[in-house]
Amino acid sequence: MGKIPTQLELASKGIITDLMKRISKEENVDAKLICKRIKEGRVVIINNNRRKIEKPCAVGYGLRTKVNVNIGTSTDNTDIKDELKKLKVALEYGADTVMDLSVGGDLKKIRKIILKESPLPVGTVPIYEVAVGATKKYGSFIKMKKDDIFDVLKDQAEDGVDFFTIHAGITYKSLELLKKYKRLLDIVSRGGAILASWMIHNKRENPLYEYFDRVLDIAYRYDITLSLGDALRPGSIIDATDNVQIEELKNLGELALRARKKNVSVIIEGPGHVPLSQIKKNVALEKKICRGAPFYVLGPLITDIALGYDHISAAIGGALAAAEGADFLCYVTPSEHIRHPTVEDVKEGLIATRIAAHAADLAKGIKEAFNWDKKLSFYRKNRNWKKQINLSIDPKKASIMRKYSKPSISDVCTMCGKYCSIKLAQRCLAL
Amino acid sequence: MGKIPTQLELASKGIITDLMKRISKEENVDAKLICKRIKEGRVVIINNNRRKIEKPCAVGYGLRTKVNVNIGTSTDNTDIKDELKKLKVALEYGADTVMDLSVGGDLKKIRKIILKESPLPVGTVPIYEVAVGATKKYGSFIKMKKDDIFDVLKDQAEDGVDFFTIHAGITYKSLELLKKYKRLLDIVSRGGAILASWMIHNKRENPLYEYFDRVLDIAYRYDITLSLGDALRPGSIIDATDNVQIEELKNLGELALRARKKNVSVIIEGPGHVPLSQIKKNVALEKKICRGAPFYVLGPLITDIALGYDHISAAIGGALAAAEGADFLCYVTPSEHIRHPTVEDVKEGLIATRIAAHAADLAKGIKEAFNWDKKLSFYRKNRNWKKQINLSIDPKKASIMRKYSKPSISDVCTMCGKYCSIKLAQRCLAL
Repeated sequence: MGKIPTQLELASKGIITDLMKRISKEENVDAKLICKRIKEGRVVIINNNRRKIEKPCAVGYGLRTKVNVNIGTSTDNTDIKDELKKLKVALEYGADTVMDLSVGGDLKKIRKIILKESPLPVGTVPIYEVAVGATKKYGSFIKMKKDDIFDVLKDQAEDGVDFFTIHAGITYKSLELLKKYKRLLDIVSRGGAILASWMIHNKRENPLYEYFDRVLDIAYRYDITLSLGDALRPGSIIDATDNVQIEELKNLGELALRARKKNVSVIIEGPGHVPLSQIKKNVALEKKICRGAPFYVLGPLITDIALGYDHISAAIGGALAAAEGADFLCYVTPSEHIRHPTVEDVKEGLIATRIAAHAADLAKGIKEAFNWDKKLSFYRKNRNWKKQINLSIDPKKASIMRKYSKPSISDVCTMCGKYCSIKLAQRCLAL
Repeated sequence: MGKIPTQLELASKGIITDLMKRISKEENVDAKLICKRIKEGRVVIINNNRRKIEKPCAVGYGLRTKVNVNIGTSTDNTDIKDELKKLKVALEYGADTVMDLSVGGDLKKIRKIILKESPLPVGTVPIYEVAVGATKKYGSFIKMKKDDIFDVLKDQAEDGVDFFTIHAGITYKSLELLKKYKRLLDIVSRGGAILASWMIHNKRENPLYEYFDRVLDIAYRYDITLSLGDALRPGSIIDATDNVQIEELKNLGELALRARKKNVSVIIEGPGHVPLSQIKKNVALEKKICRGAPFYVLGPLITDIALGYDHISAAIGGALAAAEGADFLCYVTPSEHIRHPTVEDVKEGLIATRIAAHAADLAKGIKEAFNWDKKLSFYRKNRNWKKQINLSIDPKKASIMRKYSKPSISDVCTMCGKYCSIKLAQRCLAL
């Protein structure tokens, strides 16, 4: 197959592609501006050039804040059916991308099904498949070979994966720092821990770092967006914004530059567990060190104690991060830190994250976001329950809640009844 | 009964009371500092001097962010039993105060039971009882008399209510502004709408404003904290920080000064619906206009569209508001805008708000807050599930979630299984 230029390559030449035009329409942002920002590396379009999907997705400055949903099997739960139910929920409740993080069962088969079923861009963390394959092949992932990694990358690229999380920023030097500066929680990234184990056991540099050009070659060929992973993100608010985290972020900044030079789109993954008071600083650091590359935050969780409610902790952190300039929120479910999420957990996590993203869009001045609130509040004022509920983030839930609490006066609700403030005010102000 | 000086009066004379000492111990803040800040009006202790309670509560600068839970009957749901279940949930999940907002059934009886059962300070919005009483007595609350208001205030004070929401800031002038500056949602405060209806129908000034000195006399006598209500808070993010809201806030600032001069403690109620980008400004305005008086925010909700999930919307807004200096968060339940909350809704709302308050405490630098996270993360690192769960915000929920998703390797969880990052990192870093 011949060489197809990447969107970044075309943008660099000032060429406005059909994909850019489509994004321009969806986001209500001038196509020239989209093109310019892609050129600058501040916007990326996530879409493998071998894969035609219904809903390609752009991430970055001036665009609506996007939301990713992680699905995929675990070693304990390998049933693909549950994961497909989660995919359905992701689609129904407005996810912008999904990531297949499977580590249990037939990974290639699962990935192919998810790619087939998903109209949204699909991301993966290829090192998972490498580790699972090496465990089967050699008895332990510690024995995986460099070429095993690139074989998986190529295979997944060919299958159509749209974006890869690549933990190329965790280096031998950063592991030395990790040992030097005692952390409360050393490594909380699954991919990061796999790579660190391999590096320490084999006394070798991270192959994703050492052979980053090979990663770039594959990404370039398929126009895969690289999501540069933060293997050393803080796993406790006590560890937030420490030297270890910043060392890795600097590495990611350099790798981002190298990627752009090779016309490969990149986004940067961010923490993690961060107290509210450090979120603004974290976003500013990423934007500075990575020269405006879109920021994809995993939460951030603003406390460690919200076990069972980490979707709320992440919604708080994500809303603030995105209001400060983060572009892409990875959802967190109520199951975080406890278990492989259920279908219901996925729904709860996605909705909380969408509320956070929307709140940030209001702060960012996204016009469509304002119109949504305005319209809903108009119907609220007029006590048009049907339209108010239909416009809400989860009409099913809202309509059930109202159904089981019928007011004796039909146009109000059971909270205020005849003392409904909106109705009282409307009446007296009309006098 | 003889005159008992209020805490504010005693603090003004530099007298450190037993109550101040107790708060000092609980908050781990020097008693002299507590006394000084009470004198300055930046801290209040909420406790009617006729009522001995287990857990008096202080609110304000330098202290832990407090959380209030609203309970109480509605016109459609008048069963006190459900409200007592909500009180139990409030106690179990760590509320600092409760408000009895009943408007259905025998209000005095309900209030007396709640006061008897609650070891926490209890607040009310007395105008509700006035309106309900006037509706019974005269056929409509529009016909309520000025003295009906003060009779209820006295009666509730004598019963032991610890704090009153008093909507004294909604004036005839502010209603003129409300008509002039078109709002999307005019009035969303139940008490505010009752007063506005009365004022417009009777063409009279708000009696709580006109006779504010009488309110102060009662509050002084019982050392009741006045929570100056924001009848004109924005009910849509479109209306946030508008002229109407600010006009009322200025009134509250003046009333707060008058209260302090009469040795009555005040806190200020705040919005409402506010986009993330305006929260910092709202907190700063309150602190400036009301000269550092504790800020009690109702949310704020950062979007109008989160019907069924307004507890999450409020947690986002509340966390940021408190991190910026708000002192007291009124919880919001998932039922907000839809129905009278269920017991489960109360639990969900309270926990979300407690997460927000705790996140703010981390940002405020409250040492105990950090220690909580640190301890939990220590057990997380050591995969001590029992202790980690026991320390979490809702051990019951976390333990059920784990129970129904048992991992095949006992010290990890079903998300990562044998690829548990914490375990892998611990092992390889020990090499």
